[in-house]
Amino acid sequence: MKTQAVYYHAGCPVCVTAERSVVAALDPQRFDVEIVHLGEAGDRIAEARAAGVVSVPALRLGDETFHINHGADLDALEG
Amino acid sequence: MKTQAVYYHAGCPVCVTAERSVVAALDPQRFDVEIVHLGEAGDRIAEARAAGVVSVPALRLGDETFHINHGADLDALEG
Repeated sequence: MKTQAVYYHAGCPVCVTAERSVVAALDPQRFDVEIVHLGEAGDRIAEARAAGVVSVPALRLGDETFHINHGADLDALEG
Repeated sequence: MKTQAVYYHAGCPVCVTAERSVVAALDPQRFDVEIVHLGEAGDRIAEARAAGVVSVPALRLGDETFHINHGADLDALEG
């Protein structure tokens, strides 16, 4: 069974670069990756916060959350 | 031919977590990953800086450098 990965972003340049490099580099044999655009899916922001996401881009791998570089704070998306 | 990936770290807890999750999640079919402990290999710090690394842990994938969470600034490693 594959590990669930969730990539939270907001379409920003930093987000796009990380998606094309880091997210695309994940092993497809072991990970199912869901891409979530928090600027469009505002109903997922609470879930992201609960997972420890404070800025985008962020990558959740199983139970761990990693912030990759810095594009925008989550607070700015809720503005 | 595989893409060269370099993971720069300093043995910090944040570094270890990122290595076990993110670095371990890279597709081994497409990436050759080198792990560099900048606290032990001080001669690699200049190379890391040239690649845009300002803190560890950081992951270089091909020509792109990504900071994953924040463990320590490179300046702190050079004391």
